[in-house]
Formats: sequence, C-alpha cells, structure tokens
Amino acid sequence: MTTTVQRIYNFAAGPAVLPLSVLEEIQRDLIALPGVGMSVLEISHRSKPFESMLAQAEADMRSLANIPANYKVLFLQGGASTQFSMVPMNLLGPGATADYIDSGSFSDKAIKEARKVGSVNVAASTKAENYARIPTASELKLTKDAAYVHMTSNNTIEGTESKTLPEVGDRPLVSDTSSHMFSGPIDVGSHALIYAGSQKNLGPAGLTIVIIREDLLARSVEKKATLPTMMNYAVQAENASMYNTPPVFSIYVLGLVMKWLIAEGGLTGASQRNIRKAATLYAEIDRTGFYRGTARKEDRSLMNVTFRLGSDDLEKAFIKESTAAGFDGLKGHRAVGGMRASIYNAFPQAGVDALVSFMRDFEQRRG
Amino acid sequence: MTTTVQRIYNFAAGPAVLPLSVLEEIQRDLIALPGVGMSVLEISHRSKPFESMLAQAEADMRSLANIPANYKVLFLQGGASTQFSMVPMNLLGPGATADYIDSGSFSDKAIKEARKVGSVNVAASTKAENYARIPTASELKLTKDAAYVHMTSNNTIEGTESKTLPEVGDRPLVSDTSSHMFSGPIDVGSHALIYAGSQKNLGPAGLTIVIIREDLLARSVEKKATLPTMMNYAVQAENASMYNTPPVFSIYVLGLVMKWLIAEGGLTGASQRNIRKAATLYAEIDRTGFYRGTARKEDRSLMNVTFRLGSDDLEKAFIKESTAAGFDGLKGHRAVGGMRASIYNAFPQAGVDALVSFMRDFEQRRG
Repeated sequence: MTTTVQRIYNFAAGPAVLPLSVLEEIQRDLIALPGVGMSVLEISHRSKPFESMLAQAEADMRSLANIPANYKVLFLQGGASTQFSMVPMNLLGPGATADYIDSGSFSDKAIKEARKVGSVNVAASTKAENYARIPTASELKLTKDAAYVHMTSNNTIEGTESKTLPEVGDRPLVSDTSSHMFSGPIDVGSHALIYAGSQKNLGPAGLTIVIIREDLLARSVEKKATLPTMMNYAVQAENASMYNTPPVFSIYVLGLVMKWLIAEGGLTGASQRNIRKAATLYAEIDRTGFYRGTARKEDRSLMNVTFRLGSDDLEKAFIKESTAAGFDGLKGHRAVGGMRASIYNAFPQAGVDALVSFMRDFEQRRG
Repeated sequence: MTTTVQRIYNFAAGPAVLPLSVLEEIQRDLIALPGVGMSVLEISHRSKPFESMLAQAEADMRSLANIPANYKVLFLQGGASTQFSMVPMNLLGPGATADYIDSGSFSDKAIKEARKVGSVNVAASTKAENYARIPTASELKLTKDAAYVHMTSNNTIEGTESKTLPEVGDRPLVSDTSSHMFSGPIDVGSHALIYAGSQKNLGPAGLTIVIIREDLLARSVEKKATLPTMMNYAVQAENASMYNTPPVFSIYVLGLVMKWLIAEGGLTGASQRNIRKAATLYAEIDRTGFYRGTARKEDRSLMNVTFRLGSDDLEKAFIKESTAAGFDGLKGHRAVGGMRASIYNAFPQAGVDALVSFMRDFEQRRG
C-alpha cells in the first residue's frame, strides 16, 4: 500500500482518532478478508469467519481488562443513550429506587430517562457548579436497598473523571464509561454493569459494549413478556449478541483495536501513555494563567482536556488559527463553549506536543 | 491499488454482497478522506464533512425513490427487530388496534412485539401453510379504525414477496421492506412508514432506514414524556437522526450504494436486472422437477430464491459441493432448511449463471 495520504491531528470527542496500524489493516483486507473471499462488510453474521472474529474480540477484551468469568460481554447498538433507557428498563423494578450520581451532562440525560421508568434518587449532584467537579464520597446520599447506583465515570463535555469508585456497599454499581473505557486498568469485579459507546476509545461509531454480572440477568428474564426483545439484556446474553444482525464491521474494528492495545502493553501501557499526554497538556494550561482549565484539578480527565481563554474573541481566534494549523476538533461542546482537546488511547504524544507548541506560540502573539 | 484478491459468489441473506466499485472506493479513501485528513471511521458526526455526507445520502435516496417532501428519512440503529417495537410504541395508542398481515417468520416476530404494547388484530395469516404464499386481498380482515396496517413486503426466510400493496383505505400502511428495499421502484406515497435494516440491499449491517410520513410524528410527540428518547420517532426527526452519534461509517457506505444505484439506472435499472437474475434461477428450478421451489409461483421473491431437493442427503451434498465450488451462503435459514440463494441488487448476473451451470451439473450427476 503506497498511497500517500495527508493526516491531521484529530482532537474530536468521538468519533475519534484510531490507530494508524488498525486503519492500514482494514484497508488492506477491505475487498476480501484473507481466506474468506469476501469483504468484512459482506460476511454473514452466522458465518464461521464472523463467529470466530466475535469470539476473538471478546476473548481479547476479557484478557485485556481481566473480566471475571461471571460477567457477560454484550455487543449492542444504539450508543450510551440507549443504555440510559435499557439500564432502568431491565434493572429497576416496581417499588424500587435507583440512585444516580449526577456528575455531568450525560448523567443528567441518564437520570431523565430513568425517571420515565421508575423511582430515582439523585444521590449527589454538582450541576449547580456547572459540573466542574465530581461529587465527593461524603456527599453521596444512597438509598438503603437501591436497585443500583449509576455513575458516569468520565464526563466528556465537562472534562472530569472519577479517580476512585464510590463506596456503594452491596448495591450494584452501574457505570457509563463511554469516554474513557480501557484508557487504563478497570476493576470490573467492583461493578455490576459497565457500558460504553465504542466511538471514543474502542472503535468506530455504531457499537455499544455492555459488561454485565450474570446474576443481574435474572431481573431481565422476569421482564421477557413485557420489555422490547431487543432491549432485554437476558435475551441478548442468551443469544450471544446475535438475536438479530449485530454491527459486524464495528465489531471487527473493535477486535483490531483490542489486539493493538494488547500489543502496546495492555491497559497499564495505555494508562502510562495517557497520563503522560494529559500531564503535558495540563502543564501548559497551568503554566501562566493565559489558559484556564475548567475542571477541578483533582478530577481532571485524562481523555477530555477542557480549557478557556480570557475572552470570546481570543477563543474564536484560537479555534480559527488552530484549525488552520492542522489541529481539528478543539472547539468545546456546543453546550459549554471554550476548548476541548480529546486525547484518547490512539491519540499520539506527538500531537499533544505539537498542540503545546501551538499554544505557546499563540500566547506569545496574543498574550 | 494493485492488490490481487480472490472473491467468491456470496449468496448470503444479509449481510450480503456489495458492489465491488463501492468496496474499492471505501478502500481507496480508508486512511483519509480526500481533503479531510482523517478516516471516515474517525470523523466527528458534528463535522461539516459528515453533515454533507449525510445530507447527500438522504438527497440521493429521495431522488432515487421519489420520496415525497412530506416524508422524513431517519437513519437509526438496531435493525428491523428494533422497529418491531418502535412501530407500536410510537403509533399504537391506548384503546386502538393495529392490524398485522402475517406473511412470514419476521411478521410473526413483529406481531409478538406489538402485542407487548397494545391490541393487535392478525388481519390474515399463511402461517398454517408454512408461509409458502402471501395472503390474498380477499383474505384480509381489517379493523375499521386501525392505528395502522403492518406488512412484511419481502419474506427473507420463506422467499415470498408482495407484488402489490394491500388495499387499506385510509389506514396508515407500515411496511417492513428490509430484504428488498430499492430492488425496484417503490410507491412511497402509498405508505405511512417504511423501514429496512441496511445489511441486504443498502449497505453494511448497523444501520436502519425509516421513512415516515410527517403527520404520523404527532403520535410520537405525545409520548415524549414516557417513551425512551432514542425510540421516539419525533425526537429522531427533530434532531435529523443526530440525537446521539449515528453509525457514521454505515451511512457513508449507504451513500456510496445510493450513488451506485443512480449510476446503474436507478430503481428501474435495478428492477430489470433483478427480474432477469430471478427468472434465470427460477427457470432452472422449474426445468425438470429435480429442484422444487418452496414459494407459490405468483409470490416468488426476486431477492431470496428458496428451493429444495428430493432428500436430506441430496440437500447436504448440494450444500457441500456448491460451497467447495465457490458458492457461499446457499444453505437455507436454520428454521426452514433447504436452500436459499439471495440475489440482492449487488449480486451479479454472472454469479446466477454460474450457479445455474453448477445446478445443471449437479442434477446430471445426482439426478
């Protein structure tokens, strides 16, 4: 493959940058998978090549994240927004209450969906502080027999990240890890359910990963007669994510990303690289005060680095000039403004270094 | 691009064969879209390149199928199986009844999901005849003020296809067209809602197309406070299918397939090619009686050609030898057995001709 292509630094919050080696493998095999005679875009989900592809992707994920044997891995569709509904529809029974930790815009959306289903207790919220921090352990007001406790472990829009898991006792802990899944080691066994849209750290858009402790599936079994079949965790688990046609291509790419992560030192290796990238960028933000981080320092995300400048005009100039310089996707979420540099697993240190150089140059010219 | 690849004839029922020229364009641009600097697998769904890609795909589809201006086109996830639930959840209100025409295994699944939501009248069924035919007009027992009438216009498993639309009067007609959408001209204006999973005639797995008449959206608006947001047609329409991250890559490929269809003579051209392919294959099936078509002749599908042989042993030998000869996916659905040759839009006449040669040879050796 000798095609010359111009690639730029992609700081988008998701869909986001993928490893170049993964893209090259996809490209190489796009017309026909070796030994299969057709494109991965054309293979039947009931074929042996796809069955082994799915099994390998799951096995690699289990190995990578030390997923215990009593957890099922589901490959679903619809993104985290669909999980906002599926979690309460499956896990929140009549008369029970679910606790929600409100740490960001997506927590807020999850709460709104859960309230359509049943009783919700907001166990803590930093909404009044524009979600600039994660609620502390002492702020949590948990329900005694909560159906589950829901958290958002990385807040994509606000740039905060939970550094520790909340103390929830025997209550099942459900975590939306969409924007930092596999950015570092994760203690799966301390969770009851983990979910993530794939389009940030795992692969392209169109795939949602759900890791669920098997005992929780009993709640879904009870609801088979009433829940939409496609939204029932037990049905999806019994059918090994093949109740209907799964998103074949996205699963294929996720499998390649799992292999890449393993080859690059697993989740410990990812964590080391991510800590270094984030430290580089936050150090520049903190250097003089020309840039201002929006998240409380202790809660700063390693994935989504949010910052502001002194005026709207300066921010507009920064976006315009950085885009012209080949840095894409630095504009903050439309709901909060400012800047956001998303530096997921596949984002290279060289891109962070280049951005820091640009920031320093911009400050010298405009500061 | 000088890669030499061996491609075989893929008769799978979906995911299924795609046009080679589409695969070649995907491969060429996989590392970086021209002028964009990143892969289509990495671009933000909020970026201008994706926005124009989505708008162009919709415009081409509207032009191809003459979709009237008072219809919305939605790009969703979850497959037709998710629509089995979304249709009644959005359109079937309390006290109302929905009519279902039971013409195949997927109609049956749609009925089961609708019964979880509200009152269902099975207006006609050929289940007792193993769905070997489409119910006739005179068999339909429609409800006076039905919320809608649901049909499956092509039955993938049983190999039957409705050649005309049922007479439903003022009742909204909802059609699951998953396995033959855009195989020929479609009278969108006679439908209230049309849906299809993408993985047969439209692109890779992971995308669902819904074409809905705007007046029906009022029923979904009423349900905003109760329906899961992701399952609400009105929310998806108001957000132009971008309430959350859509399946970017599948939409990109669908756009390329739409352009390919237009270049190949539109839906009239597709229809002519499909009629010729199916006629070639059915002629061979009918030639001597060695092969036996399973569907009533008048209702035979142009897309999924189902047939049997005289014994289980012969069928096993046929599958084994045809696979060895480079014909993949000819085994019938596990629920019904026998053989099925799916010959969607992108399946070439040459592949049908080659299969007919194989069939004739097989008959000479085994007949």
